[in-house]
Order: sequence, then structure tokens, then C-alpha cells
Amino acid sequence: MDFLDFSLDSILRLGKKNLGAPPGIENAADIDKPPEHGVVSICTIDYSLEGIEQQTHTDVEALLKSEKPDWATYRWIDIQGIHPYTVNRLKNHFNIHTLSAEDALNIPQRQKVEDYEGTLFIILRMLQITEGSLINEQVSFFYLGDVIITQQEKPGDVWEPVRERINREGSRLRQYGTPYLLYALIDAIIDNIFPILDTYFDLIDALEQEILLEPIKGTQMRIHNIKRDLAYLRQALWPMRDITSELYKNDIELLPKKVIPYYRDVHDHSLQAIEAVEMYLENAKGLQDLLMNANSNRMNEVMKALTIMASLFMPITFFAGLYGMNFEHIPELGWKYSYPIFLSVCALTTGFLLFYFKRKGWIGK
Amino acid sequence: MDFLDFSLDSILRLGKKNLGAPPGIENAADIDKPPEHGVVSICTIDYSLEGIEQQTHTDVEALLKSEKPDWATYRWIDIQGIHPYTVNRLKNHFNIHTLSAEDALNIPQRQKVEDYEGTLFIILRMLQITEGSLINEQVSFFYLGDVIITQQEKPGDVWEPVRERINREGSRLRQYGTPYLLYALIDAIIDNIFPILDTYFDLIDALEQEILLEPIKGTQMRIHNIKRDLAYLRQALWPMRDITSELYKNDIELLPKKVIPYYRDVHDHSLQAIEAVEMYLENAKGLQDLLMNANSNRMNEVMKALTIMASLFMPITFFAGLYGMNFEHIPELGWKYSYPIFLSVCALTTGFLLFYFKRKGWIGK
Amino acid sequence: MDFLDFSLDSILRLGKKNLGAPPGIENAADIDKPPEHGVVSICTIDYSLEGIEQQTHTDVEALLKSEKPDWATYRWIDIQGIHPYTVNRLKNHFNIHTLSAEDALNIPQRQKVEDYEGTLFIILRMLQITEGSLINEQVSFFYLGDVIITQQEKPGDVWEPVRERINREGSRLRQYGTPYLLYALIDAIIDNIFPILDTYFDLIDALEQEILLEPIKGTQMRIHNIKRDLAYLRQALWPMRDITSELYKNDIELLPKKVIPYYRDVHDHSLQAIEAVEMYLENAKGLQDLLMNANSNRMNEVMKALTIMASLFMPITFFAGLYGMNFEHIPELGWKYSYPIFLSVCALTTGFLLFYFKRKGWIGK
Amino acid sequence: MDFLDFSLDSILRLGKKNLGAPPGIENAADIDKPPEHGVVSICTIDYSLEGIEQQTHTDVEALLKSEKPDWATYRWIDIQGIHPYTVNRLKNHFNIHTLSAEDALNIPQRQKVEDYEGTLFIILRMLQITEGSLINEQVSFFYLGDVIITQQEKPGDVWEPVRERINREGSRLRQYGTPYLLYALIDAIIDNIFPILDTYFDLIDALEQEILLEPIKGTQMRIHNIKRDLAYLRQALWPMRDITSELYKNDIELLPKKVIPYYRDVHDHSLQAIEAVEMYLENAKGLQDLLMNANSNRMNEVMKALTIMASLFMPITFFAGLYGMNFEHIPELGWKYSYPIFLSVCALTTGFLLFYFKRKGWIGK
Amino acid sequence: MDFLDFSLDSILRLGKKNLGAPPGIENAADIDKPPEHGVVSICTIDYSLEGIEQQTHTDVEALLKSEKPDWATYRWIDIQGIHPYTVNRLKNHFNIHTLSAEDALNIPQRQKVEDYEGTLFIILRMLQITEGSLINEQVSFFYLGDVIITQQEKPGDVWEPVRERINREGSRLRQYGTPYLLYALIDAIIDNIFPILDTYFDLIDALEQEILLEPIKGTQMRIHNIKRDLAYLRQALWPMRDITSELYKNDIELLPKKVIPYYRDVHDHSLQAIEAVEMYLENAKGLQDLLMNANSNRMNEVMKALTIMASLFMPITFFAGLYGMNFEHIPELGWKYSYPIFLSVCALTTGFLLFYFKRKGWIGK
Repeated sequence: MDFLDFSLDSILRLGKKNLGAPPGIENAADIDKPPEHGVVSICTIDYSLEGIEQQTHTDVEALLKSEKPDWATYRWIDIQGIHPYTVNRLKNHFNIHTLSAEDALNIPQRQKVEDYEGTLFIILRMLQITEGSLINEQVSFFYLGDVIITQQEKPGDVWEPVRERINREGSRLRQYGTPYLLYALIDAIIDNIFPILDTYFDLIDALEQEILLEPIKGTQMRIHNIKRDLAYLRQALWPMRDITSELYKNDIELLPKKVIPYYRDVHDHSLQAIEAVEMYLENAKGLQDLLMNANSNRMNEVMKALTIMASLFMPITFFAGLYGMNFEHIPELGWKYSYPIFLSVCALTTGFLLFYFKRKGWIGK
Repeated sequence: MDFLDFSLDSILRLGKKNLGAPPGIENAADIDKPPEHGVVSICTIDYSLEGIEQQTHTDVEALLKSEKPDWATYRWIDIQGIHPYTVNRLKNHFNIHTLSAEDALNIPQRQKVEDYEGTLFIILRMLQITEGSLINEQVSFFYLGDVIITQQEKPGDVWEPVRERINREGSRLRQYGTPYLLYALIDAIIDNIFPILDTYFDLIDALEQEILLEPIKGTQMRIHNIKRDLAYLRQALWPMRDITSELYKNDIELLPKKVIPYYRDVHDHSLQAIEAVEMYLENAKGLQDLLMNANSNRMNEVMKALTIMASLFMPITFFAGLYGMNFEHIPELGWKYSYPIFLSVCALTTGFLLFYFKRKGWIGK
Repeated sequence: MDFLDFSLDSILRLGKKNLGAPPGIENAADIDKPPEHGVVSICTIDYSLEGIEQQTHTDVEALLKSEKPDWATYRWIDIQGIHPYTVNRLKNHFNIHTLSAEDALNIPQRQKVEDYEGTLFIILRMLQITEGSLINEQVSFFYLGDVIITQQEKPGDVWEPVRERINREGSRLRQYGTPYLLYALIDAIIDNIFPILDTYFDLIDALEQEILLEPIKGTQMRIHNIKRDLAYLRQALWPMRDITSELYKNDIELLPKKVIPYYRDVHDHSLQAIEAVEMYLENAKGLQDLLMNANSNRMNEVMKALTIMASLFMPITFFAGLYGMNFEHIPELGWKYSYPIFLSVCALTTGFLLFYFKRKGWIGK
Repeated sequence: MDFLDFSLDSILRLGKKNLGAPPGIENAADIDKPPEHGVVSICTIDYSLEGIEQQTHTDVEALLKSEKPDWATYRWIDIQGIHPYTVNRLKNHFNIHTLSAEDALNIPQRQKVEDYEGTLFIILRMLQITEGSLINEQVSFFYLGDVIITQQEKPGDVWEPVRERINREGSRLRQYGTPYLLYALIDAIIDNIFPILDTYFDLIDALEQEILLEPIKGTQMRIHNIKRDLAYLRQALWPMRDITSELYKNDIELLPKKVIPYYRDVHDHSLQAIEAVEMYLENAKGLQDLLMNANSNRMNEVMKALTIMASLFMPITFFAGLYGMNFEHIPELGWKYSYPIFLSVCALTTGFLLFYFKRKGWIGK
Repeated sequence: MDFLDFSLDSILRLGKKNLGAPPGIENAADIDKPPEHGVVSICTIDYSLEGIEQQTHTDVEALLKSEKPDWATYRWIDIQGIHPYTVNRLKNHFNIHTLSAEDALNIPQRQKVEDYEGTLFIILRMLQITEGSLINEQVSFFYLGDVIITQQEKPGDVWEPVRERINREGSRLRQYGTPYLLYALIDAIIDNIFPILDTYFDLIDALEQEILLEPIKGTQMRIHNIKRDLAYLRQALWPMRDITSELYKNDIELLPKKVIPYYRDVHDHSLQAIEAVEMYLENAKGLQDLLMNANSNRMNEVMKALTIMASLFMPITFFAGLYGMNFEHIPELGWKYSYPIFLSVCALTTGFLLFYFKRKGWIGK
């Protein structure tokens, strides 16, 4: 199994901000130039208990002109792609606070929830595994009562099931309106963390096996990477916990009492995810000890091999050297059975040493 | 002694959730199909100070039809086995909040206590050692005043002693009714942690001995496993602490003042368990150092053996080589007592080196 | 100096509880059978500013019949030995809460303070060094206004000085009555931690010396033990801190304002003890690094010896082998001074290598 | 890439305080002597929505004489260079609290915000990378309603973009006045932390590569330095977080409600920076493990080489010694094909050992 | 540079308390016997804005008889040396709480501030470097409104500058009276921590150099000592932080609003000191890693030397042995140029191995 390409680089590298540039959105480049076709795609879902209508708009002007049908109580505006022009137009039309609009425009931002009068502004990080690689986007929510605007960095999200459920007649999404929709969207984001955690669970498991069988050169690096990735995940999860906790604990006017238990539920899920991450991180740290011990054992094995080798051959090599000496008077040299006796002594010595090492547990274990 | 099979896998693996699936219980599969015979077993205990009656019901319909006898004040409905149909029927009959019902249905959930008006909903993890392996189930409590519904994953639990005591006339369980019954059930769950802790105490003790005598290849893995298991136990215990604390600290309407000290007591037990786990975890971490040191000592021993061997034989092998040279003019070669002198020099050299190593503490210690 | 026998086993092993057994004291075995003679010894001290009377009672019935003299305001009932019968009789007579009585009966309990109406119930751990080994008992205090009942596990305690002071006329103990007596008893328990800490200070000091001079095989184990013991002490001290803090911070009705500063003082002592333990624990952890470094140094020393040995003899052994060859045309063999030249070359080589190792700092340091 | 010269020395060394010297500013040396020309440079920006005027003053007297034009509502006095005379004159003129003045004069101070009636006094640390080396100054802010005084240690700062924006007509800086200016100045300081973090991100990345390829002697030192620097950065960032949090959470009279969201924003940036530092620090600690493992691997490789060498040559050297013996009766010596057979045996032995090591994974991996 | 003699022993050893002894000061030995001449020296400074008078008293009776002149508003009584008689006399005269008096008498005590009605009682630890060794005393403050009593263990303190400033006419000390004097005394104690920190900064720096150049046997011990000392300093500083925080945060009646900012300032200094200690401690821990790596590198170097040596000589020794064999039919033996060829082969083998090790980076790096 291979590692996800977490592309932490794009997230962690924070130095790309336009330093000192006026934070004002009005100074953003391209503020007056509508985005080219295909850069930003806009989709609305108008719905109420009675019905639902889904529309795709060519551009932000079309969106702003389109009106909610009379029978529809709620509208979800889903924007995929970020462009200053679009954000600015929405800001002016929906009376969004300048700072929210700027945060929605600038990437990366810290995840957060902010409660400007009449608007709930939320930034979350949407993580998902698509075709084996991890996609990581910033999602902004503008919750304006009966209208929710969501803005993603690029097409493709984790909300397909939500869209299906909104189409189902009589579903809670239809009954409870936007307060429940907001919950459903956040819930989908947090629930999608679990398969990622699952991947890391498998990776840790595989590494454990690898270390036990035969650690290779890359093993340490893989432990390092897992630890770094999990640390990142933890850091991404902590604000989610805070945001969901704020949503159900603070008396936010825009969220009716009836849906609060659902926010408590999503908060619970975020806690569950955090606990799992902490656990895996702890496990990954344990791998370090496992590897260190494996290294130490391997070294021991090598050293034992060397010591055994040296111990076996050094004595008998000396004996051979002894009778290779050219002294004139070495009585043993003339004996008839010197050579076989010598060989027997060598064999005995070696045998004794082998037995000794065996008993010491250096051989045959 | 062998390790428990903690089957952490089933607990920690959180990715099996039906992602994005409508959280609504009404969408669960099999919601309309009653479970097959034997999948869910239902048992009621109706009791008051005066008497007690225990019944087993064939299915949930039978349960809902059966009424509490007039003389009975309290009812404990004990359900073993989880099925959407059963949960849904109970939900509708007892007016349980949808989210509680869903949490009771989906496994695994975080342990928690939730106070919906008129209902106290609690999820706990029931750990027990049965025939040497560790059973781990999720238990849901619906506390509805005079009725308590408990739902376990499968038959077999830690509540046999509670059932015995409820049968005993005049026992506190009979006197104090369901508020005390709830306490007794939770207390039984927490008290059953202690024998598990005890097992780990023995395991740590055994490992300590193993490291001191002769660490083997698997030792490190066993330390790793103990640490992981204890970390899991800690994580399972923390929410228990929070839940019991919430039960006795918050003024929960459904729990009369009289039983509050009992909840404080069970809270105390959860603290005691946590302190023990922390202690054992600390100890297990200490084993790591012990093992590392043992490894280092073994390596030292091997290296010393090698060094001694080399030191003893290298000099005398050189001497032997010296007199094996074919120079024409080596006066010693012709002497009469060269050979015995040579042998004595070798013996002396060896003796001196042995003495030196002895004094250095490398031999004979 | 040898290690204390901390007998942690008896403290840490928590699995001996009668699982699921009815917590009710009325179900305890022997509840109706008075203890045999000598199992429980009971002693009362009745006193006031005017006088003091000390009595020993044969059994709990005698105690309950004996009345406080008219002149005496305060009574301290000191019970040594635990028996269900005794505890139950006291419970009924003094109207003690069932849970307190049960906690006093069951060992081990967490240290705690509980304020039932009219009674202050405290559990502390009494540690003391007697004849070189550490005694560890659970002490229960029932503070009932003018009467204090203390219950120890076995005879022998740290309160001898308190008894002496209570005999001294005009002492504060006599003036301030039971609120001050309770303080004095707790203070004596906490003050007796300090000599134990002192012992560990000496042990750490001795270990430091041992590691610097010559670490032996048991050194690591001793560090491990010290760390474990100190961790246990810390865990025993934390609740003491909480209990003393609760006694002086919460407005406990039974304790008059006048004595509160004394409780603040004993709280301070508990903090001082905790700080010392933390410090020693930190130091003990430092010993681990010291030892690891010592091991690493020893290994280095062994390796250097081996390398020097091999470097000295390998080259000259080769030279000797060279001239032991049987080639017919080796001109040097026939030279007259070959042998002395050869010896000189060997000496020079060896000398050069010795000098080189010396300069490198491998020899003579 | 090389390391920044963080010159921690000048920051961390805290012992240079005039110990015991009267903290009073009136005792400072040079209090009555105006600074020489060029030591302190003073610049004012008077502005309102209508216009802006920038002035440079020769000395503090000139500054104090110069008055704000009628059309200008706000004034920013920017002082570069610290001198007791200047600080004292400003203190008397603007009625600044003695302690603030003293803190502005003495370097280094802890970063902090203090709210004396009518004045907000802030100390921050301004970090910036200029020409590859890191500049580290203490900046003091005196916020006096419509006037802001900033004092830096030396010329050169991170506020150029702020000055540009203040010149832009209709910019928010011009609209919102000094409350927004204060925000903009603090924001510029915090935003300039990010490129520094970026540098460390690159350094960690480079080190990771270095360790994987070939750790050298300096590698450990570089890890050590990075950890130290990041620890310093963290310590510099924590107070920034507290200060910005205090500015937006406490109801500070001098800051109108309208600008509070901006302070929340800058607080958010400080959090983002802290999270990044924590992450990098965690990563840097992981490098330690990587390096340790690399070392251990290298050692293993060396040991294997030695063991292979010894194993290959020791047996055949013994064989050669065997037939170098001078026994009279060694039948093999006279055989015709002894020599080629011997060579073959040597080759076979060597071949077998090579194969054995290969299979064991010691060679060719 | 050498280490300070921290004499932690005298501070940390806490077991010398008179266990169980009546805490009452009235039981102290020597309570009725005035101290011998020279044991306790007493000095008063009476002052107001108008004037100042400094007196030295022969004994405590003389002190108690001496009255403050009419023109003097404030009095500072400075006592150097501790004796039960003196403390008891002061206690009775100034109506000090018994527990304060006892704490002032018994050493060591935890640092603390206590607010008995009408008296502020403070204990601090006064650290100073005198002639290269560190002096460590306990200082008690009794703040009684217009009178401050300070009690030190022995002559010599850090307050010389305070005394000088009190003599200066018009100084703040003279203006603000005892509330400011208390601040000045505490400030002097905390400011004197900084030069000590500075010493440790230098020590860490020196150790870093030592490890990089050539770690010796004592290096590890020095790291251990620095860590222990800094841990002690941290533990001494934490209560200082708490005490100064309590002085400025709690509305202490005895301290007028006007001086509160000064207490906030001294609190700030204590924070600065703590931050520095934490930083140095972190650095000292980093030294451990540095040293471990240095050891590992040295070991690697030794092992490489050995491996190179063995690799160079083992093959050629075998070759020499080969031609030392006594087989009758070894054709090479009779060749004319065998010997030079043999020497060339040896040289080539050695050359090739040297080249190989060079390329592998084992030589010449």
C-alpha cells in the first residue's frame, strides 16, 4: 500500500500572502473582470417541503437575476471555483461583511465560524480521497437565513449524498430547511474524515508488519511521514471541534432549537475523529520504539556472527601457526600421529566453542 | 501468560460508516422487516418493593403488548441484539428522540449521556473477559422515569449479580427503583474494568521479569501491544468519568437527590480506574527503557567477548608467525629450548592479558 | 542503602473487589458476628480545656455504652482494625451514611472528602517507615462535630506526637477542640511523607554515584523502581492536595473560621511535598540519560580496545607471513641482518600506530 | 541554503539590566541631553479622509511644536531610534504613564498590552528578513485616541505598504482613522512572520533530504539550531496571540466597535502562525529520530562489512596455516593435486559464505 | 567556566522538620532565651518625604522601645538572622498571626503570600551570586501598613540599591511610602534572578562548544546538573509569579491603587524570567540529543577504523599464508618473479580497497 500524496506543501506554506497588501477586497486583481467561462460554475437548489428545483447558471449575473420560485422556501447556492469578481458581486448583493468576503477569497485561511449580524460565516477544510490521492479544499459557508451560499475551490465534493437526500420527498432536509442543510453539509465533511483515518490505520498496521519482518531503509521515513500527516490531520480537526461546539453551545439566533441536537451530533463525530487521530498518533510513535529495537537486534545479530567467527578460527589458526614454526627442536613435529591428533584437537576446540555459544543462546535461536 | 485478544480492530476502525447516508433511522435497511427469530431477545423485569416478575418476550410486538402488572412500579426492559425494526418500534412507542434511536442503532458510537426532555440517553462500552478473550460491546440506556430500556449488541453481560440482587427481597434495588437500578447497571460496567486492569498488571509484571532474565525478539512487540491496549482503555475510561460526573453534578430532574451519592460513588470508581491505567501506562513506558538498557548490555557483552578473544590470540599468533619465517639467520631457531621458552612466553602473555581483563571487570563478572 | 519494600502490589491491584456484589454493607460477611478478641482495638480520648481521660474498650458495645464525662467537650474515638460488625454498629449509632460506612470497610479506596449533612467523611492514605520497611494503611475519618472517629487498618500510627500534645495542658489541641484535632491528625499524616521523600533523595544521590563510577546490571532496574515508587507517591499526594484544599476553601459548616488558616497551612505542606516529588521524579528521569550515556561510553571503550589491538597486530602478522612464504626467490631471506631489521620494522610500525592512537585520544585518556 | 543569523544572543541574554537601579526614567543617563543628530529620526503623518501630509522633524522639539493641520483628524508619529531625552519629552507632553515610558526605553521587554486611562500601551517584537539576515526590534505603540506614537529601535521597518495605503485616497486607513491604523500596523508585523516561517519550512525540508542522502557531522547541530529558533519564534508568538486577543475581546474604550472584526482577524493570523510553528517544531523533532535511525543504519552497514570480511578470510587463512605446518607426516603435502584442490576448497568456502550472506540480505541490498 | 555550587541539598532536603512537634511557636526551643550578640542584627529606616533616619539596634528590646520620629511616616525594620525569641517578641508586639510567625521561623517554607486581616505576610526565596557561589535564603515580609518588617536568614542581601534610593531625596520610594517599598524589595529579588540566568546561558553555550569539539566523560553529568539546576530555578520562579500576580490582581486593601501598576510590572519581570528558564531548559534538553549523536558518531568512527584495518590486512595475510604452505607441488613457488608479483598483487589489493573505502566516504572525510 502506498502513501497518500498529502500535498501538505500547499497547505503549510503560508508565506505566499500578499504581505502588507491592502486587505480590502476592492484592491484584489480582476475585481472588475468577470471570470472566463468554466472557471466558476454556479448551481442553485430551491426547495421546500412541497418541491425542489435545481438550476445551473452561466455566470453570477444570471444567478443574481434568477429568483426563488414562490413555492420554494429555501435556496442553496453552490459555487465551485473562486474568483474576486464573483465574490465581490455576491458580497454586494447579499450584504456580506467585507472581511468574510476577503477570507473567502484568500487561501489558505484558518477554519472558523464568525457571527456577523444576520450572517453566519464558516470556513472549513474539505478533505476527500479521490482516485487514491487526497484532495484538500477550503470551503466557505455564508448562512443567510433561508439562503446558504457555499463556495469551493474546485468542482467535485463530498456532498453528492446530500443532494440525493434533498431530492427525496419528505426527507428531513426538505422538512427542516436550511438550518438542517447546513448541518448536513458540515456532517458530510466530517464524516469523510473517517475513511482517511481508516487509510492511516491500515498504513500503521502494514508498517508494524514491515518492522517485525525486515525493516528497510525507507521504514523510518514512512514512520516520519505518517506522524507528520496525522499531526496535520489533528491540526485540521481541532478547529472543526471548536466550530461545531460553538454552533450548538452558543445561542446562535439563526439556528432554531429544533436542529441543535443535530449539531451536537456532528460535534460528537468530530470528537470521535480527534480521539481516533490521537490514538493513531500514539501508535505511530510506538512504531519508532519498535524500529529502534529492531535495529538494535539486527546489530546484535551481526556482532554475534562476527564474534562467533573470530572465536572459532583464532585459536586453531594460532595452533596451525605454532607448528609452522621453524624451530629445530619441536618434538611433536616428528611424531607419527601428530597431524591427526592436531586435527582432532582443532575439531574438539571448535566443537567446544560451538557448544558454549549454543548454551549461551548465541547460536540456533 | 498470553495477551488478551483485544480486537481493537473492530473498535478503532471507524471508516465503515455509511458515508453521507441519510442519518434518518427511517432510511435504515430492514426497517420494516421484523428480525428473524433468535436475532433479538427481549426480557422484562417488572418489580416494586412488594414483588418481582421476569418475562421473556418472543418479539418486540409481544413486549409492547405486555403491560406492567398493577403492583409493579418499575420496569427494566433488557434487549440483547440490535435490529432496526426493534429500535424503530421502541422509538415510536416510547417517544424516543430520533437521534438517540439512530445512535443506538449505529456502531460504534462515542460514549455519552444526553438529556432529551423526559429521557436520559446513555451510551457506554461494556468490557468483560469471557473465557480468556475480551468482549467489547456497546450498551445503550434509555432511562424513561419508571422504565429503563437497555440494549446490548449480543447476549451475555456483566449484570448477572444485579439480576440476583433485584430478586432479593428488601434489597436497595427494590426499594429505590429505577434511579438506583441505572446506577447499579453502570456500576457493574465500571467495576468490571478492574479485573481487566488486573490482567495488565500481571502482564507488565511478567514482562519485567522477561526483560531482566532474557529479552527475546517478541518482547518489544509485547510492550508495544500493552501500551496500545492501555491507551485504548484510558480512552474508553475518560468518557465514563465524564458521564458519571455529569450524572451526579448536573441537576438531572429524573434522578432524585437520594440516589445522587451513589452516582458520586460510581464516579469515584471511574477515577480510581483511570488512575490505575495512568499508572500502568507509565510503568509500561518504563519497560521500554529497561529493554533498551538490556539490549545495550547484551551488545556490550558480545563486544567484550570479541575483544577478549582477539586480544588473547592476536599477539601469540604473531609470535608463531615470527618463527615461521624463512630467514636464514634467525638465531633462536637453533636453540635447544626455544620451543618450551616460546610456549611459556605465549602462556605468560595470555595470562597477563586475562589478569588485565579480570581487573578491568570484563571477565568473571 | 537498600530500597524500601513498597509493596505496591497490595495497593495497585484493584481487581479483588467483590464484583457485582451488593454494595450494601448489610450484605457483608460477618456483619452479625462480633470480631474475635484482639482483631479490633478501640480507644477513646475525652477531653476539654479542663481535663483529659483516656480509655481502652474491650469491644464496640463497651464503647457505645461508655459516655463522655460531663466536663469533657470533645471525644476522639480511635479504632485500630477493620471489621464489618464494628463498622455497622458505629454506623447505626452515629447515623453515618451507608456509603461512607461501606467505603471505610472496603480497601483500597480513593482518598477523598465527602460532606454528608452533619458528617465529614475523609479517607487518607497513611504512609510511614517502620523498621526500614514502608507501612501503608487506609485511614477513615468520621468528623461528627464534637466527636471524631478514626479507623486504621492495623495498630501503629503516626499520631503518637498528637497524643502527647493532647495531654499537655493548655495546648492548642485542648483549646480548639475537634476542628483543630482533625487538622493535627491530617497534618501528622502529611508531615510523615517528608522522611520518605528524604529516603528517595538519598537513593537518587547514591544511584548518581553508582552510575558515574560503574553502572551494574541492576542499576537500570533500580532507576525503574525509583521512578515507579515516586510516581506512586505523586499519585498518593495529589488527592491529599485536593482534600486539604477543599477543607479550607469550601465553607464547610463544621469547621469554624478560626481553624481555617491551619488547614491552609496543611494544604501548603501537601503542595511542598508534591513539588519535591515532581523534582525528584524529574531527577530520576535524568538518571536514565546518565546511564544510557555511561553505557555508550563503555561500549566505545571496548570498541577502541579491540580496534587498537587489531591495528597493532594485523600489519606485523602479515609481515611475518610474508617471510614465511616458500618462494624460492625471496632475496631478503638470505640477508644477514634480515631478522633484526624485520624486528625493527615491526617495532617501528607498532610505535607509529601507538603514537597515532595517542594523538587521536584513544589511548591514555 | 544557509541558516538565518538569528542573533538570539541579544534577545535572550537578560542579565544586562541595571540591577536595582531606580526604575524611574528620571534617573536614566542622558535624560537631559538631546540625542545627537541622526540618532533619532522623527516623522509625522497627519491625515483624514480629505487629505494627508507627511513631515520629517529634525528633533523632538520640532515635533512638539508642529501642530496638526485643521483638516487633519489623525496623526501618526513614527520615531526611529530610542533615546531617553526623546522618550522623556514625549512622556511629559502626552502625559504618558511613567512605567510605559520606562518600558519603551529599556530593551528587551516582554511583549504586552497595557491600558492606562486614556492610553493604550503596546510592546511588540518586529521580526523581518532583510538581505538574508533576521532583524529583530522592539516596537512600542502609544495609542492616544487620535494620535498614535510608534517607536522603533532603528530605521527600517515592515510598514512601507501601510504608508502606501495611507496615501491612497478613500482607502480604509483614511476612512477609519487611528483605530484602523493601529490594526494595520500590528497586522503588518504579524504578517511578516510568515515569510520567516516559510524559510524554516524550506530548511526543514532541506535537512530531511540531507539526512536521507548522507548525514554529516553538522546535521545534528542544524537540527538543534532549527529547534531552538522555532522555540524562540513560538515564544515570541504566544504573547502576540494574547495581545491581539485582549484587543478584540476586552471592551477597550478607545477602539470603536466597527474595527473590532479587524482585530479578530489579526488575532486569527497570530493563531495561524502559532499553529504553523507548532507543526514545524513537531517536524523538526521528527528529524531527530530520522537522524538517529540513519546513524544506526550506517553503523549496521559498517559492522556487516567487517563481519563479512572476517568470515570470508578467517577460515581459508586457517586452512593455509594448516598446510604450512612442519609436521613430518602430513600425507596431503605430497599429493600431486593438493594445491589445486586446496584452491578449489578455498573458493568453494568463500562462495558458500557469499551465498549465505546474500541470502541473509547482508550483501547486495 | 565552572558550575555554581547550588547547594540544592539544603533546599531540597525536606525531612528535617520536627515531625509531629507541636506547630506552636510557644514550644520552640530558645523561645525565652534572647539570642547571643551578633546572631541577629536589627536595623530600622524611618522615613517620609521630608527626611530619613537609619538606626541599628542592639537587640529586639531596643527596637521595640525605639519610636518612629514624628516627622517620619514609614518604617522599615530589617532583621538579619532568625531566632525564636526575636520572632516571638515581634509577633506579640505587632500582633502577628501565630502561623505567620511559625512559618518565618521554620526553614524551608514554600514561597507564598497570605492576607491575614491587617497584615500581608509574604515568603520569598532570595537568590544571589556572591563571589562565584550562589546564596539562597528565605526572606519573610510582614507588611503592616506603615511598617514593613523583613527577616533574612543571614547578613548580606540584594537590597543595597534600594537603600541608596531611599536615601535620595524626592525619590519615588520616599514619595509613595511602604506600598512602593514593598514593591521595590520584591522587584530587587526578582531582578537578581537575571544574572543567574545569564550564567546558565553561558554554561549552556560552553557545553554546546564542548560537545561539538570533544565530549568528555563529565559532559553528560554537566548536562544533568544544568537541567537539575534550571528545574530548581523554574520551581522557585513559579510561586514568585503567583505571588506577584496575586498582589496586583486581588484587591488587597493595604495596597493603594496608585502602586498597582508597579506590581504588574514586577509580575511581568517574573514572567520574563520564567520564559527564559523554560527556554534554557528546552535548550539543555537539546544538548542531550547533541551529545548522544556525538557519541554515536565517535563509535561509528572507531568501527570504521577497525573495519578498514581488517579489510586491508586479512586478504593479503591469507595470500602470504597460501605461499607459506608446504605442498610439494605449488608451481608458483619456483617461478623467478613470484615474489615481486606477489608484492604487487598485495599492493594492488590494498590500493583497490583504499580506493573503495574512499569512494564510500569512510576515509578522508
